[in-house]
Amino acid sequence: MINIKDVNPAVIETEYAVRGRIPIRAKQLEEKGEIIIYCNIGNPQAFDQKRLTYVRQILSLCENPNLIESPPEDYPADVIGIAHAIVHASGGLGAYSESKGVCFIREAVAKFIGERDGTTGIDPESIYFTNGATEGIDNVLELLIDKDRKTGVMIPAPGYSLYDATIKRRHGKIVRYYPDEKREWKLSLERLEDSLKKAKEQGTDVRAICVINPNNPTGAVLSREEIEMILNLARKNNLTVLADEVYQENLYNDKKQFISFGKVLQEQEESLKKQNKVLELKDKDRVSLFSFNSCSKDYLGECGARGGYVECRNVPEDVQAELLKQFSMRLCPNLAGQVLVHALVCPPKKGELSYDLYMQEKTNILEEYKKRAGILFEGLNKIEGISCNPIDGALYAFVRIKLPPSKTDDDYCMALLEKTGICVVPGSGFGQEEGTFHFRMTILPPTDQIIKIVEKLKVFQEEYCNAVTSEE
Amino acid sequence: MINIKDVNPAVIETEYAVRGRIPIRAKQLEEKGEIIIYCNIGNPQAFDQKRLTYVRQILSLCENPNLIESPPEDYPADVIGIAHAIVHASGGLGAYSESKGVCFIREAVAKFIGERDGTTGIDPESIYFTNGATEGIDNVLELLIDKDRKTGVMIPAPGYSLYDATIKRRHGKIVRYYPDEKREWKLSLERLEDSLKKAKEQGTDVRAICVINPNNPTGAVLSREEIEMILNLARKNNLTVLADEVYQENLYNDKKQFISFGKVLQEQEESLKKQNKVLELKDKDRVSLFSFNSCSKDYLGECGARGGYVECRNVPEDVQAELLKQFSMRLCPNLAGQVLVHALVCPPKKGELSYDLYMQEKTNILEEYKKRAGILFEGLNKIEGISCNPIDGALYAFVRIKLPPSKTDDDYCMALLEKTGICVVPGSGFGQEEGTFHFRMTILPPTDQIIKIVEKLKVFQEEYCNAVTSEE
Repeated sequence: MINIKDVNPAVIETEYAVRGRIPIRAKQLEEKGEIIIYCNIGNPQAFDQKRLTYVRQILSLCENPNLIESPPEDYPADVIGIAHAIVHASGGLGAYSESKGVCFIREAVAKFIGERDGTTGIDPESIYFTNGATEGIDNVLELLIDKDRKTGVMIPAPGYSLYDATIKRRHGKIVRYYPDEKREWKLSLERLEDSLKKAKEQGTDVRAICVINPNNPTGAVLSREEIEMILNLARKNNLTVLADEVYQENLYNDKKQFISFGKVLQEQEESLKKQNKVLELKDKDRVSLFSFNSCSKDYLGECGARGGYVECRNVPEDVQAELLKQFSMRLCPNLAGQVLVHALVCPPKKGELSYDLYMQEKTNILEEYKKRAGILFEGLNKIEGISCNPIDGALYAFVRIKLPPSKTDDDYCMALLEKTGICVVPGSGFGQEEGTFHFRMTILPPTDQIIKIVEKLKVFQEEYCNAVTSEE
Repeated sequence: MINIKDVNPAVIETEYAVRGRIPIRAKQLEEKGEIIIYCNIGNPQAFDQKRLTYVRQILSLCENPNLIESPPEDYPADVIGIAHAIVHASGGLGAYSESKGVCFIREAVAKFIGERDGTTGIDPESIYFTNGATEGIDNVLELLIDKDRKTGVMIPAPGYSLYDATIKRRHGKIVRYYPDEKREWKLSLERLEDSLKKAKEQGTDVRAICVINPNNPTGAVLSREEIEMILNLARKNNLTVLADEVYQENLYNDKKQFISFGKVLQEQEESLKKQNKVLELKDKDRVSLFSFNSCSKDYLGECGARGGYVECRNVPEDVQAELLKQFSMRLCPNLAGQVLVHALVCPPKKGELSYDLYMQEKTNILEEYKKRAGILFEGLNKIEGISCNPIDGALYAFVRIKLPPSKTDDDYCMALLEKTGICVVPGSGFGQEEGTFHFRMTILPPTDQIIKIVEKLKVFQEEYCNAVTSEE
């Protein structure tokens, strides 16, 4: 019989905090009858968020194309038309699609990206659908990491646990860079170069840099200058950029806007061409970019569908052939997820029958996010020993906590769970500067719950610090 | 910019023939306007197979739970009841489920396995849902392979290309064992032990054995004696068994039946306990088993949904915790796929409203498979230079071809594609004994197409052999 000693050490050493020790304990407590508030994960429909009517209707028609012929009474014509087109293009959802995904839907994504970024020439063949953004990130990291070469990948700290876990799992070296918490998580070139230099000194062959914009867990939204800084660093040091842009619709600060890495890259390259007076840039002046998107976040919040895509820029054909081979080994991404990607990139247009309801539902969801982020931010900052930068984007607060000297944020989160039923993720699971402690919680609970969570946190923080202090 | 020289060599060395060079060429030809018959893959709904009404109805209701309240007129009450239960258990399909999958559906799988094998005590917590069986196989192989230990995994040759590709990708060593083509692909202990011995002599640390039953690509169905042989070999040599049982309903020889590895394992262990007069076996007498199933094959043929599961037996809790961690990193398997797994394991029962239509559709599909397998088998064996063992199960013919001395089956398949538009996979992609050449084709094309394919193959085989012979 197999023994734990036989198990792949790369798996054992991997830690994925978002579904790690604390949420596992939460489930045990729940099974014993305790009430748990799962704030560990951005799972909107596990709270009060409803599916968009437009999305539900399209999916139900695609899953049973017989309904397209005699649709339910309240299904509008535009929905029926889209479902018909998807069923026609994919042959229904029952067959494997191309490994990349249904061409018709990839074309829609290319159009969406072009319109978003004010550009043309996005190639549907450079778009690969994935089971959630996760699968794309895993495959691209696997593509870039050579187990025998000490391949290093730069990741933000704090940054979503998946990166840390996947780099370990795929035998790479983690190279953290540190946005500045004191300056609302702003990036600085100095800090970026410092991380890179130290890694190189240790013999790490740094090949890629991951960015998350808006950031999970900090909620920071990158400015154009920061994006340019990253791209310039990548160009200078021959780094491939992985841009995690799954929260691109989740912005709560009117002064900030989402700008895609693809857009800035294209503009930089156009300007470089003019500067160098050439029609095509040399390879050394181009930056390879993989950009990820998902239908789990934004306002769709369709986490269960596992739909997403990766878009490649400046990735040569032979390298893309290897990525395609990786994806072909799982045959194809799930078809319902592909339909959801279509819904993500093709919302109803003004004048179409579904438009008004869709806009109303969408606006309502985004306004709720904004409201909850605001209440959480204000509430948290009123608690002594707790602070939090503005939540400008994404779905989380990354909360700084003062702790008694002997304690870690792991201890804190476990105690919080046992005492209050609130399940959050320790900052250690995301990377944080030494000597600082945090936890991540989602902004998704309904307002009245958020208010209660803040109240409970206030009492807990005080008790925890006092109890431990007196214990010592 | 990234260069192919930077890419992970483990990815580059991997080959997945089923979606490899030949199908990629087929797509190019198709884009030029040629008519291609894709026989490279078991994708029933890409041919004439329809989705089962029962399945379509349940899925459409789950995707839009509003329809449950006012369902389409022709939806029977049992379908509505099941959809309601799934929506209730999963909270709709919009949220992440547990990493393992929705508990309610895992319980249904446990019940299904128990009833199939005539046993009780199947633990729903040892069942993990996956995006297709593929994801389960990949994760279990990753769990077992240590990149620094020369971990060997025995796989059948011929055997489904995924195993070869995944073992390379996850840094393991491939150890092939050879069922005997002359004896209708029967296994022999001698051949199994011979493979194992040779691998050990080369310093490979053989830790696992994969079996595919019914076999893809050969169609061979394992007898109870063969299953016992594998399990005894595993017990003696401390091998973990991976049993790919995705074709468990695809049997076309009335004299053969599907017996699960789980059933035989349990019976062996019961008998060992009696023999040793103990209540619990020692670890050394137990065999760890991972068994895979999918809703892509059988008669559902729901390839697009990417639904499947892995069941663990004799896998200690601490090892299962690592498997769970792997699965938690992709958050959860897609929910529509989970609904399809429910449909797979909970068909309507006699007396329920959906029963008659379901049985009629199911029987029709399985009878078509059987008929097509028979026509293909007979037709192929009438062609000079071509032969094929009986297709007892699965969805493929593995066809032996005589070739001119200078040619390989890769050459043959490419020429066949260019000449006739028939897309098949070279035997080299599945492993085959040295000096033998094959191709794999699916039995799925409609009868009239199969007859035409056989005719074209006859002409092609003759021309190809003659042309090449005269060329030399």
